[in-house]
Amino acid sequence: MDAEEISNLLVPQFSNEISDEVLEDLILARDAPASPGAASGTVCFDATKAAELAQAGQHVILVRPETKPDDIHGITASVGVVTSRGGVISHAAVVTRGLGKPCIVGCEAIQVDLDGGFFTAAGKTVNEGDRISMDGASGSVYQSELDTTDPSLEDLPEALELLGWADETRRLGIMANADTPSDAKQALIMGAEGIGLCRTEHMFLDPKRLPSVRQMLLNAESAEEWRRENNDRVFRIENEENAPQPVKDFYEALDQVKELQTGDFSGILRVMEDRPVIIRLLDAPLHEFLPPYETLLMELMELRQTGAPATELEDKEDFLQLVDSLRESNPMLGHRGCRLGLSFPAIYRMQVEAIITAGAQLVREGLHVSPEIMIPLTVDVEEMHRLRQDLSLVASQVQAHLEVKVHYKFGTMIETPRAAMTAGEIAKESEFFSFGTNDLTQMTFGFSRDDAEGKFLRSYIDEGILPIDPFASIDAQGVGALVKLGVQAGRRERPNLEIGICGEHGGDPASVVFCHEARLDYVSCSPFRVPVARLAAAQAAISGS
Amino acid sequence: MDAEEISNLLVPQFSNEISDEVLEDLILARDAPASPGAASGTVCFDATKAAELAQAGQHVILVRPETKPDDIHGITASVGVVTSRGGVISHAAVVTRGLGKPCIVGCEAIQVDLDGGFFTAAGKTVNEGDRISMDGASGSVYQSELDTTDPSLEDLPEALELLGWADETRRLGIMANADTPSDAKQALIMGAEGIGLCRTEHMFLDPKRLPSVRQMLLNAESAEEWRRENNDRVFRIENEENAPQPVKDFYEALDQVKELQTGDFSGILRVMEDRPVIIRLLDAPLHEFLPPYETLLMELMELRQTGAPATELEDKEDFLQLVDSLRESNPMLGHRGCRLGLSFPAIYRMQVEAIITAGAQLVREGLHVSPEIMIPLTVDVEEMHRLRQDLSLVASQVQAHLEVKVHYKFGTMIETPRAAMTAGEIAKESEFFSFGTNDLTQMTFGFSRDDAEGKFLRSYIDEGILPIDPFASIDAQGVGALVKLGVQAGRRERPNLEIGICGEHGGDPASVVFCHEARLDYVSCSPFRVPVARLAAAQAAISGS
Repeated sequence: MDAEEISNLLVPQFSNEISDEVLEDLILARDAPASPGAASGTVCFDATKAAELAQAGQHVILVRPETKPDDIHGITASVGVVTSRGGVISHAAVVTRGLGKPCIVGCEAIQVDLDGGFFTAAGKTVNEGDRISMDGASGSVYQSELDTTDPSLEDLPEALELLGWADETRRLGIMANADTPSDAKQALIMGAEGIGLCRTEHMFLDPKRLPSVRQMLLNAESAEEWRRENNDRVFRIENEENAPQPVKDFYEALDQVKELQTGDFSGILRVMEDRPVIIRLLDAPLHEFLPPYETLLMELMELRQTGAPATELEDKEDFLQLVDSLRESNPMLGHRGCRLGLSFPAIYRMQVEAIITAGAQLVREGLHVSPEIMIPLTVDVEEMHRLRQDLSLVASQVQAHLEVKVHYKFGTMIETPRAAMTAGEIAKESEFFSFGTNDLTQMTFGFSRDDAEGKFLRSYIDEGILPIDPFASIDAQGVGALVKLGVQAGRRERPNLEIGICGEHGGDPASVVFCHEARLDYVSCSPFRVPVARLAAAQAAISGS
Repeated sequence: MDAEEISNLLVPQFSNEISDEVLEDLILARDAPASPGAASGTVCFDATKAAELAQAGQHVILVRPETKPDDIHGITASVGVVTSRGGVISHAAVVTRGLGKPCIVGCEAIQVDLDGGFFTAAGKTVNEGDRISMDGASGSVYQSELDTTDPSLEDLPEALELLGWADETRRLGIMANADTPSDAKQALIMGAEGIGLCRTEHMFLDPKRLPSVRQMLLNAESAEEWRRENNDRVFRIENEENAPQPVKDFYEALDQVKELQTGDFSGILRVMEDRPVIIRLLDAPLHEFLPPYETLLMELMELRQTGAPATELEDKEDFLQLVDSLRESNPMLGHRGCRLGLSFPAIYRMQVEAIITAGAQLVREGLHVSPEIMIPLTVDVEEMHRLRQDLSLVASQVQAHLEVKVHYKFGTMIETPRAAMTAGEIAKESEFFSFGTNDLTQMTFGFSRDDAEGKFLRSYIDEGILPIDPFASIDAQGVGALVKLGVQAGRRERPNLEIGICGEHGGDPASVVFCHEARLDYVSCSPFRVPVARLAAAQAAISGS
């Protein structure tokens, strides 16, 4: 059987009582199915509004020309997403598959008028607030609200039996990517044996937290300068009253973020108990947490036009300048990952303090926990050496302060080609490797995922220049060859090195087979792909080497 | 001896008659020496103005906070460059070293007031139009115009003897990077055995040509759609009268650019005669040839404010939309190199037509020429296969039309990690490889050169996280290991494969030693670095393997 098929059993479906004729009468559009499942709800055109409506208890279907990273709160809050542009590797498609939400993309039959607050399709006008339904498996959008049923793996005895058999057969471990306690619960239901990737970016992007996060980021440079000029404090400011205001603001915001992060990590570790939870420290470039430069530029021009007071103008100019200073020509290859961790040590220290504090509190309650601290974007063992030294000191201090021992590991993503080429060295400072094959694919091909899909990648695949989409299925010749080099060199240095991959490839059956053959220990994928990965891993074990 | 030292003999110096006391009296600032040589001229703060003044016969020193790629015409026209920001791998530093022009960077003592048209330094005010002098070897800026002398290699018999001895000893070939006939002449004087990299970007960026280039690029999408809907014409439009206006505009502009390029290539091939001239087809993303989005956005807002006529507003809006559609999140990893060549076949066809036409005209005159056509940014052999098939047809047609046989080769840059990992396959369609170690370094490390220097790379090197700047000297462990894999796989497939590197590394003594050991056939570097490379190659041969 095709491992993929099991995923269709596990997503919501329209009720059996709805006939095909009824569906045909109600159809508005049909286009690229990007993530399976049925959903019905209220049309909403704006991510923030969608989040508010969902908060008020409504089921919302987010309809957008396309989605962007800062729409994440709206996507998370919606029951389904429809976009009029983009393909099956667009932002909306990738994120919804990760969340297990239905999604239809590139639906050109839907003409969205954002200003007017409506869309037209099949000659009909649908206003914001109207009800629609969607089936992500067939790529269909329907008028009006249709009943859905939501099957649970626990209610599907045949699927459970099949997966149980797969678990006995497979050699690969199956972990899940999860950023919240509810994702983690879902991961357990789906059969995940741990969390292979817990990203801290989404925790930062929550709109309620953004003011603190921005306060922290905007003052990070000043705080770091001040820290270097004074002494290297790990925890908090000594002589706080002498610090300049931006430094005080930075530490105040850092403390707020730390409290929130401690809660986040505590929730996930509690759900996962003694299973491994691999937490990646902050990876994204800082400007992802700030408003776009152009928006600020236009706001400033409008303020000037309308004769706003001088102080307001100055504030806006200062903010614009700060945002400008963080802009990058190629943010994917810029100041992110552990480069940030080394430039602004206080941020990673705060995150490690939060992880170990959360772990310690749970240990006190009598639970076993296994957090693993993961450093992103490493290029050289020296980065790992310095961060490990610094962060293990933080971990020791927290444990000493709380008088609790927390078992944790320290490891890295292998996601730059250089990390793969120098993996033997990097293994000296790493207890585990997680191949970040999304970024590794971007750098190995020189394909920016944000740009490639819309500009040339689709035609490369359609015209057969590349046999597969390397973001959907791992490219064995190039990216896979780097993974194998990394595995060999890493294990030669440290035979018990724990090695896996995280990212979309972990839920793709062909890539799971590759990972089995490359003798990885596990794959990690979105919770909704875990059953697919369990089956694919068993198939690889049967047919394979 | 240090191979580096010979370069100091070959750059302009202040006249011997100027005493150290005089120099001390005149000093304005001293900071990072980025490119050696003495120069004196008129202060200018704007690249376009510098180009105009130079055109009118003035010697200009360009003083900027920093330089950007679209300042290239001003840098080329100036006798020296001083920037108040940036380090020794900043744009200004890299470009001037390539041009052999003196440059001082990061000169914070100079406070540039662009609006006021002056700078202050050492308590003095220097206005635009005033005379200053600079010594790029010591990093010093002086008031007033000082006499300089310009030594030529031909007048330095001891240096010539040393280099002659080096040439007898070395195994590596030494080529030069040159984009113009005058660069090519300089390369010959310096002892280059061919042109290892002739870039076509600078030819496109010339301000006099930009209108045609922009016309071509802005209509490329329409022209390509029309071409696909009709038939696949290689040379020109059939039924031209039926084509929509943007298609006509595209082909008209394409013809203009072709004429100019034919002249460019003819000039370089004539200078180099039978020596190899490796011409890289268009590599840069298209938006590099267009004005920045933000500039247009602000212009549009101003037009709206001042109540400009509707047609003018519409034109500006259309242009803004076009420029917006070409913007990319990570242009380094975007729609560039052979991806453009495959999306818009007419552009590479035009370039090959220009190369073979230029070659054919020279052959008719009785000259021997050796153009080599180089495809940039390859990731897969299939790109090479398709482009080779298409472009060799163009070359055949031109030769048949002109009834002249032109000997040429067809090869590729190896500058993505994937090209290095799949070099064996790529060699099936390539007669030569040129490792583009600048881009290969960017992708292997995940370091955007534009962002890394200002944000974190300087502190990585200063604090010893990385032992060397990988853009200055090849990183043997990561980038170098990929080069070696590529060389082995390429030669296994095609034993007589011609292999070299181009880019800044080719003029760095330590990298030259690496290339000797990796058994490359040649290195290519800027003409002014050729003597250094000749010596370093000899030293590698003596001390080495």
